[in-house]
Order: sequence, then structure tokens, then C-alpha cells
Amino acid sequence: MLTPFPSRTHNCGSLDASNTGQRVILAGWLLPGRRHRAPPAGKGQTQGITGSSFFLAYSSSSPILKGTTGEIDVQVERFTVLNPASSALPFTPSNPFNLPNDDLRARYRYLDLRRTALSDNIKKRNFLEVETPVLLRSSPEGAREFLVPSRVSDTQVSERPLFYALQQSPQQPKQLLICSGGVDRYFQLAKCFRDEDGRKDRQPEFTQVDLEMAYVSWGQDSPTASGFSDQWRIGGTEIRQVVESLIRKIWLQMEGITLPDQFRVMTYGEAMTRILNITPHLPPDVLSAYESNGEVLECIIVRKSSDSEFIRASKACKESLDTSTAETWLKGSGLGCESLKGLTTDGQVQLNTALNLRYGDDIWLSKRPALPKVVLSLTPKTAQGGSTSLGRIRLRLSELAQIRGDFAITADPHFLWITEFPLFTHADEDKDFLAKGRWSSSHHPFTAPMWQDIEAMYRGDIEHVRGQHYDLVLNGVEIGGGSVRVHDAAMQEYIFGKVLQLTRQEQAPFNQLLHALKCGAPPHGGIALGFDRLMAILCKTQSIRDVIAFPKTSTGTDLLFKSPATITEEALYQYGLRSRAGSNTNDA
Amino acid sequence: MLTPFPSRTHNCGSLDASNTGQRVILAGWLLPGRRHRAPPAGKGQTQGITGSSFFLAYSSSSPILKGTTGEIDVQVERFTVLNPASSALPFTPSNPFNLPNDDLRARYRYLDLRRTALSDNIKKRNFLEVETPVLLRSSPEGAREFLVPSRVSDTQVSERPLFYALQQSPQQPKQLLICSGGVDRYFQLAKCFRDEDGRKDRQPEFTQVDLEMAYVSWGQDSPTASGFSDQWRIGGTEIRQVVESLIRKIWLQMEGITLPDQFRVMTYGEAMTRILNITPHLPPDVLSAYESNGEVLECIIVRKSSDSEFIRASKACKESLDTSTAETWLKGSGLGCESLKGLTTDGQVQLNTALNLRYGDDIWLSKRPALPKVVLSLTPKTAQGGSTSLGRIRLRLSELAQIRGDFAITADPHFLWITEFPLFTHADEDKDFLAKGRWSSSHHPFTAPMWQDIEAMYRGDIEHVRGQHYDLVLNGVEIGGGSVRVHDAAMQEYIFGKVLQLTRQEQAPFNQLLHALKCGAPPHGGIALGFDRLMAILCKTQSIRDVIAFPKTSTGTDLLFKSPATITEEALYQYGLRSRAGSNTNDA
Repeated sequence: MLTPFPSRTHNCGSLDASNTGQRVILAGWLLPGRRHRAPPAGKGQTQGITGSSFFLAYSSSSPILKGTTGEIDVQVERFTVLNPASSALPFTPSNPFNLPNDDLRARYRYLDLRRTALSDNIKKRNFLEVETPVLLRSSPEGAREFLVPSRVSDTQVSERPLFYALQQSPQQPKQLLICSGGVDRYFQLAKCFRDEDGRKDRQPEFTQVDLEMAYVSWGQDSPTASGFSDQWRIGGTEIRQVVESLIRKIWLQMEGITLPDQFRVMTYGEAMTRILNITPHLPPDVLSAYESNGEVLECIIVRKSSDSEFIRASKACKESLDTSTAETWLKGSGLGCESLKGLTTDGQVQLNTALNLRYGDDIWLSKRPALPKVVLSLTPKTAQGGSTSLGRIRLRLSELAQIRGDFAITADPHFLWITEFPLFTHADEDKDFLAKGRWSSSHHPFTAPMWQDIEAMYRGDIEHVRGQHYDLVLNGVEIGGGSVRVHDAAMQEYIFGKVLQLTRQEQAPFNQLLHALKCGAPPHGGIALGFDRLMAILCKTQSIRDVIAFPKTSTGTDLLFKSPATITEEALYQYGLRSRAGSNTNDA
Repeated sequence: MLTPFPSRTHNCGSLDASNTGQRVILAGWLLPGRRHRAPPAGKGQTQGITGSSFFLAYSSSSPILKGTTGEIDVQVERFTVLNPASSALPFTPSNPFNLPNDDLRARYRYLDLRRTALSDNIKKRNFLEVETPVLLRSSPEGAREFLVPSRVSDTQVSERPLFYALQQSPQQPKQLLICSGGVDRYFQLAKCFRDEDGRKDRQPEFTQVDLEMAYVSWGQDSPTASGFSDQWRIGGTEIRQVVESLIRKIWLQMEGITLPDQFRVMTYGEAMTRILNITPHLPPDVLSAYESNGEVLECIIVRKSSDSEFIRASKACKESLDTSTAETWLKGSGLGCESLKGLTTDGQVQLNTALNLRYGDDIWLSKRPALPKVVLSLTPKTAQGGSTSLGRIRLRLSELAQIRGDFAITADPHFLWITEFPLFTHADEDKDFLAKGRWSSSHHPFTAPMWQDIEAMYRGDIEHVRGQHYDLVLNGVEIGGGSVRVHDAAMQEYIFGKVLQLTRQEQAPFNQLLHALKCGAPPHGGIALGFDRLMAILCKTQSIRDVIAFPKTSTGTDLLFKSPATITEEALYQYGLRSRAGSNTNDA
């Protein structure tokens, strides 16, 4: 189900007599064949002919015959079933005369949206910009959510209070939209919400440019290991093209800068080697302590010769940071880092040689768990680790160097894709409060594994499975990320149950997605770009607060509107709630 | 402060040498004058000269002198101070070298946004499409809000839980944006949230096209009672023009229909007379009962001759409705309505003559409180009363007639403005749960009174004060509403304190707006159009659910995502909350 497949050369609706004799690649939904050849195929439809059978819609790789039905038919040479509808559908959306009741259609909205009558309405609205619900159900797919108490209570289960959750991203709605077949390409400027503990440059509410596309593929190249262009060895090439084209347009229009035709691509593994693991060089007793703790010691080096624009920032950073270890260790004889104290002179010389250190270079050291931290992205010059301290230091150095005028980041925008991230992790502390020792998804559980690693996944070799995820990084700052999704229901179930070992109850918030996949979903993928971050970069300001009209502080409070604020116990009562502090706090 | 004033003829930035000798009307912010005439006025600035003094910016009504500073100066002939900055400003945003700390600037964000550095960022973002916070503070300005518990607790007051409220509309943020001076014209496709009990065609979350403009005025006409064009006797003519132009564009592009250059205007009073009060015709004993209850009996008539397209719908409606009284009362001798039972034959004839009733006409009767229901809007043919039962019946008749094919609504779109609503009401039950017997605002407390009625308001003649509110109605369906706002802090305080009699605590959520007005806010006004409703009309469907990708049911539940849903007591605990049902419900 997840083998590579090529891009379509045409949409079904675009074929006409002028295409006679051409070989084409189509992708789309299969409809029942027409009994007679008489009526022409409908808008966006093409009739395929294979042997003596007919079917309507969109097949793959074919020379074209002329004039049998409608203007054009396609002689099918080869076809790939991308996703069968494996379960009995709750109803048949193609039959407008026998629709079930409103509730059933609401429950299976992704099937209802296949009805042309409905999807035409949605399409009329903003040319496929689709709004998705902000009030959703709590689901453990990523960050911590905000809850919204409802005055509706669960009368079936002893009047327990019921809650919506504010969307952390439109992940499931947008996938369901594509699964419905009603929308082929979706976009939205989506307001998202995350209840995260005060991070410097985050807001509890933020905006993302959100995309999702059906039939994302491996592109026109032959999908052999050597044939991939510029290291993009995963699906989703259409997402890459759309995003690069969008970014190129923005930079040309707003900055007058012409960006390269293709952005560079670096694998996660390659990016990680820019951070050097020096654990093997540790004194034997320290080394064994590291090994038994499952930790490694890593470093980044700011070289006086090649990184001169960051040397002043590095010195200044050392003075202002209190938590990090920084040493110009060749300068003095001793090493500031406790772990390296026991090195012999020979060991020191060996290490210096291995790292190619020169007098005046700065070296930044950091201890971290041995399993790779997965949310990390970097460019050669600067880097932001979503959660590694070295990543944060690289980012800080870059900022400082900019403030000092040693280094100008926007004058020369370097865009970079990071791909081939580990699909699963044990090392993300933010996620471990839900995973409780089990594997968790590095990004979210809907990301497809690389097809080269599918066998490894089913074999149980979880830690070596790479995902079809891509991060877009600008001068060391992550500005977006996305993935090709799992469109195979059996594989998605395997990931939920066997890899992540979610209980039935934990899987419940994903049931509608699983069912939608079973109804025959097209391969699809998407991305989200951080709009606030993007605007901050374009406005050349360090803080997203400078591009948000009414921002909140890093602890999530709003000093202007004075939110959050207390409410009365009386108001709380109607949600079936009371405050833990007790009823002696009744005065609002 | 709220006297009528004319539209500006030019923006300050648009004046150049070619305007020499012209008389112009400018409106804008006053900046300190420059000591020397040498440097030209900055972008968007004009220097005014009055006697021997100079000031920079935007004055009013002037012939133009050439070449003294910059390209053009304006000789001030007459000026009106629209709003003085009456309180000492917490800081001076025009001085970039002496900015206070982040917290103070965050608290007075509407002053901080006057800084060009910041407002330029906001302006770069989407050509003045500005995003406002969804997570706001609870404020009693209209509908019931959704609350969002925060994990931050109020440590100063015995750890009481703290809550955000989801915006019911961006009312305060957009006014603060205009008050800031950083944005002259704002728009947003805003996601809004209302926790209302299941109404047929409402969604707990919905989208509105939201506008706000500085310096909305009485237009170019001389603002005398007789001089107003087409009955628009209030401010906000710029809003009217922008909205009519937008609607005309949409209908031309999507429907191929050319709408009239100006939409019709009807006053609330005139609209109300389409519903006939027949209380005076009641038998004496019934009449006195009505009077002591403060009630009136009203009717609408579906005439066989002039309203033939609704007659079949009216008959069908009578059969399906259980709560309303409907009688073809001339048909039989008796009257179905209890209140009219005691009429003498003379009385009947008199009433029939007064109402000009003919055999076969349908008459719909309804009792309601004597004070005018304020949320009502109608066209001659059909009408929707936001809360009157006759209004609902007219809407239902229109729907039925459309379903039966007797009447096609979209073939001939009738747009209509309703103006001059009562500014305050006692009669809105939805609002009375907050007002508790006090006056409440018909729309929201920021709507300005008509200038003709300001004196009446200060005199305490509250019920006769009309507001500068306007509703836009399409074929009887309200599709938008807005108003000119109070920009005079003293008047706003009077309305909060003396008219609405809000306690100091109830006024707290409005403090930032009051303070922003005191810092010198321009006159402003705005409107919100219901985007879902508009799309439903354009898609020719009765339900907004048909134009929303993932709608909720009328009770606010989502059958697809199964929200709202229960959460664990453990999760509740971190918000300082517990469920009322007790701790025996710990299994999620």
C-alpha cells in the first residue's frame, strides 16, 4: 500500500481529444463503470478501458483512445490500487436518492462530503480554503490541549461533565477532508492552540498556514535509491514543490530576493553529525558511567577561523548563560567540564586532534540521553534543537551575532529541508507523560514510515524506522513541518496497537480516522508553516509578539485584557464543575 | 463629542502640489508641531497652519498653501477636536528612545501599537487583515461565552482557578486596534464562539466577516434632518459604502446579478409598523388585562390578493405548527383567538375594516411584552424577528413557500438596512439573566446613541434613545449588523454606570476600552457579516451546516469527532477543578 508511485501527469478532467495517442498517468477515485458507452464521462471523470471491462475515473499509465465515450477514453496499461475500501460502507454517497438520516451522515461526515452536492458547496467557499472546527475532542496526538467545558452533561454516565478540546492543529479534520474525496487540495490559515508551559517565543494561540494534498507521490523520477533528486528519498514531492514555490513568491515579492529553484535537503542523520559525539574520548571510568546512564556527551565547535562571525557572540554568551558549559579548553591547561577532568595529556591531545581544534576555538558541551532527540533541525551555520541544549545554544549564538552586527541572517536566506527523521522515540520528555515508557511518535502517529523501513517496522526493529516527515528550516529556525500520512488502515492500526501500544480507550479519538482510511482513502500528505514565525522573520524582528496585534506573555497571561480571570462558583456550577479550593471562595 | 461630522475628502498622505488651492476635509491624529519649517512632513502626514502656530497631521476643512514645508501645507479654516486625550498617558509612544518595560507596554497595547515600528509590522501582515485573540477574558457584553480553564491559578486569592473566555466576537480588540491609531481600517475573517442553547440554525462556532473603520462620518451631505440620503440619519456612512460595494461585487461575480447602487434603508419604527398592533380593538375587559400585564396583541396578514405566493405556505404552516394561533377569521363566524372571542359583531366589522381584510386572507396573531423587541428586522415580504414569534412565522412562511416553489428568494435579492433601533431594552429575555431588571443594551454597550437623542439619554428618557446601529437584511434574513461606537469616554462611562447601572466589578472587563478612549480615540464604527449564512444563501441551501465542512448538531455535539467528551478527574485536577458529581467517577 505504501510503495512509491509517480506523480499524475494530468487530472482526469483535463484530458480531451488533443491528448489522443499520449501516454498519461492518472490518479483518483474509482467509480462504477457505465453499462453503455453512450453518455460522455462527467466533469473531472475519465473512462478507462481494460480488456472488456469499463470503469470510470482515474487509472494509471495509459495510451489514449479517441471517441468511444465522451471525447476520450483511456486504454489501461498498468494500474495500482492505492487503497481499497475494505469495510462495508455505512452508506453509499454516490446514490443521492437513498440518503440516511442526518445523524448517521454527520457521524460519517467524510463519506457525506463525497456527495457532489455537498462538496460543491465547500468548494464554492473560498476556492478550497476550508475551515475546520476549533472545538474538537481531546486526543493524545501531540501537545497539551486547552479544554472547554460544556453545559451538556453526560446523562448516561452519572452526569459527568463533558469537554471540547481546542484544536492543537487541524490534523485529523484535514486528513478526513482529503479522505472524503470531496477536496483534493486543502489550505487554511488555521488558528491553533497549545497549553504549553511558558516557552520563550511561543504563544498559547498561534496561526499556521496549513496544507494537505491527495496523491502526493515520489515525483517523476524513477524511485530507485540512486535516482532521487537531491536526497529527497521520501514521498510528498508535490508538497515540497508547492511550499518552495510559495516561499519563493513571498521572498521575491516582499524582499526582492530570488531564491534557488530547489531548496537543499539534508537527512536527519547528516544534520546530527554536525553535532559531534565525544563520549568515546572520555576517561574509562566516566565513559562507563555514561554508558550505564544511557547518556552521551556531545559538542559543537565555534571555530576562530571558519566561524569568525560567531566568536564574539560565543564569548558573550558564555558570560550570560548560567546553565551551560563552555570552554576554550586549549587556552588553559585544565578543562572546565567535569566529565573531561580525568583525561590524560595523551587523551587531551588525541581529542583535540580528532576535533581539529585550534587555539581560540570555542567548544560547547552538552550531555543528553543516548537515543536521538528527534525534534532537531539545523543548517551548517546555526541550529535550533527543539529540545537539545546544544541546539538552543546554536540559536542563541546566531541571535547574539546578529544583534552585534557580526552576522546578518535575512540578507542571505538559507532554506533547508530536513528529512528521514526517526519515526518513533523514547527520548521526548514532553511526550513521555502520555507514553509512560512506551514508544511515542516523533511527530504524530499518522506519519508514514519510509517505504525502505516498512519491513523493519513489522519486524519490530522500531528504533531504525525513519518517517516520511520533512521539516523546513530557514537559517537554523524551523518554520514548518509535515509528512506523508499513513493511508493504509491496517498499517495505521498496527502503529496504534503494536508499536505505540495504545489501549483501546487511547485509540478511541482516532476511530473516525481509521474508519475513513478503511473507506478507501487516497495517499495524502501535508505541511504546516508557522505563520507568526514567518512574519517575524519577514519583519526582521526577533519576537513573534512584535507581529501579533494582541499577544500574551510567555506564561500565557494577557496584561491588557487581564486574562485568564476568575469566575464565580455559580458560573462553574452550570458546567458540572466546582473549584478544588472549595466553596468558601464564592465571591468573584 | 458625538455631533455629526463630514467625511474626509483626502487622506493626509495623498495631498501634493496638485492640490494647491483646493479646499479639503482631513481627519486624523494630531502630532506635535515641528519647530522649523525645513523638513518635509513624514509619510501620511500633513502640516496644518493656524495663525502663527504649526501642527502636524490632519485637521479639517482648509484651502491649501503651497511649498512652505514639504510639498504642501494646509491653511486651517475650521477644526473640530473629535476626541481629546484627557488622561495622562502611561507613556509616550511617539518617543522611541524612552520606552517603558515590556509588561507596561503589554498592558497598554493600544498605545504601544501607535509606535510606527510596531504598527508597520501589523500592517505588513496581510494588508490590515489583523488577527485578534480567541482566548480572551469573560465579559458580559452579549451572548453566553465558552470558558477555557487555565493551569495557571490565582495564587494571590487562595488558588482559585482562572479562565479564559473564547471570543464571542472581536468587538473589544477591534475597537482597541482603531483606538490605537496603528490601524485605520481593519478586517478579519473571525472565528467566533457562542455557548447558546440549541437554536435551529446556529453553530457554537461560526465565522464572521468583521470590519472596523476610523473616522466613520455622516457622509458628504449636510447633516440636517431633511438632508440625509434615503433615511440614513446616522453616522457610519463609510461602513455602508464599503459593505454595499463588497456585497455588490460578490453578487456580480458569483450570481451575475447587478445590485442597485444604494441599498434601501428602513427605520426600526417603520419596520415595526408592518406588524400591526390590534390591542386597541380588543374587547374592553381583555384590553385592560393586556394593559395591566404590559402586553400587546399583534398580527401579520397574508393577503390572498397581494401575497398569493405565501397563501399555500400559510395553510401548510398552520397544520404543522403547534404553538401559534392562525385563523382565516372571516371564513367562519367564530374567532380562534381567545382574546378576540368577546368581540361584538360591530367590533369584528370595525377590526376587519381597519385591517382591510378580504375573504381568504390569513391572519397570524401573537402576544408579546409592550416594550419593543429590539432584535427585529424585516422586509416588506418576509421577516425574521430575532426573538418575536411573528418574525419567526414570517421566516417560516418564506421557507415553506420556497420549498413549494411558490416563491424564489435568491432570484431577486432584496437588501435592506434597518436603522434607528432602540438603544436600550428591558425586553430581551436572553440578556435579562445578566441585567436582572436593569436596562440592557439592545446590541452591545459600545453602540453610540443617535446624536438627536443624546440629550434625551442624559435627561434619563432612556426608552426613547435610538442607537447608531444598522442591520443588513437580505430577503428577510439578517446577514449582518454593526454600529457607530461611543468614542467619548465620559459618555461611555455614563452608559456603563448611569444607564446600565453596572457595578464596578461588572465594568472591570471594559476598563481597557475606557482607558483607550481616554487616550484620545478617533470616532469609529464597524460591522460583522455572518459568513456562514452568506455562503448558505449563495449556495442556495437552507442550512449553514451544508456549507461548513465539519458542523455540529443543534445541541452542539459533534457526532464525527464525538465531542464534547469526558476527561479524567486527574486531568481536571491540574486546572484546580473537580466535577460536581464527585470523585466516584474517576474512570474516564
